[in-house]
Amino acid sequence: MDTYRNPALTVDMIIEIPQGIVLIERENPPYGLALPGGFVDYGEPVEKAARREAREETGLDIELKGILGVYSDPSRDKRRHTASVVFIATATGAPQAGDDARAVKIYSIDSLFRGIPAMAFDHGIILKHYLEWKQGMRTIAHPLPAA
Amino acid sequence: MDTYRNPALTVDMIIEIPQGIVLIERENPPYGLALPGGFVDYGEPVEKAARREAREETGLDIELKGILGVYSDPSRDKRRHTASVVFIATATGAPQAGDDARAVKIYSIDSLFRGIPAMAFDHGIILKHYLEWKQGMRTIAHPLPAA
Repeated sequence: MDTYRNPALTVDMIIEIPQGIVLIERENPPYGLALPGGFVDYGEPVEKAARREAREETGLDIELKGILGVYSDPSRDKRRHTASVVFIATATGAPQAGDDARAVKIYSIDSLFRGIPAMAFDHGIILKHYLEWKQGMRTIAHPLPAA
Repeated sequence: MDTYRNPALTVDMIIEIPQGIVLIERENPPYGLALPGGFVDYGEPVEKAARREAREETGLDIELKGILGVYSDPSRDKRRHTASVVFIATATGAPQAGDDARAVKIYSIDSLFRGIPAMAFDHGIILKHYLEWKQGMRTIAHPLPAA
């Protein structure tokens, strides 16, 4: 059954900390600023993948708040078709660049409202949707299924 | 890159019609009552997969309202690990059993509140969450990303 070709499943996280949200500068191609995230492992629920990737890339233990959306436009990643479950999450503490992250960067919500920086993939669109949620123009799926 | 093993991506739809919601009696194992749904094709956005599967299995042209959740517990399907994006959708017209559906069944919302029938996979849990949303105890991700 595994020869059936599916989009590859990924997770991306908008991690809110008191100072703003946490982005990473990617260590590997495609370079640039991105949300922390990565591939979901076989046997791993998406919520667990989100917590694992956050820890690996930013050192943060996150608490998931809900799902902003599922982003699956086939052109969102030039390398292959991926479908990403995008979570909004919170964390405390100081982020620290890990796996696949050259650096972590904190952007205040105010600075994002003044302008979204250039981002890898469709992460700029995702941040635009996040800001729409912050303004009450969009809802998120909450609570999450138990996993 | 395609040797990386990921959960297989699926969609399932809670289709609201004026008389209730549309379930199918599965033609193939695992047998039983289920939400209409199926695998997402490579190159296909999840929203398009949802509309395609609804048309194939129920004959209905659906309009997507939002995402109830992403269900990815590794034990939800005994055959392999699947992750399902669950949409709430609306349709008009009379459903008709197609592909992979032996029959379509319409359950009124009232009857679901009186008791959720035995369902394949984790679809009983999904319907429980749907009823929680109907009662305002849960939100859905809305609007959907453009795709």
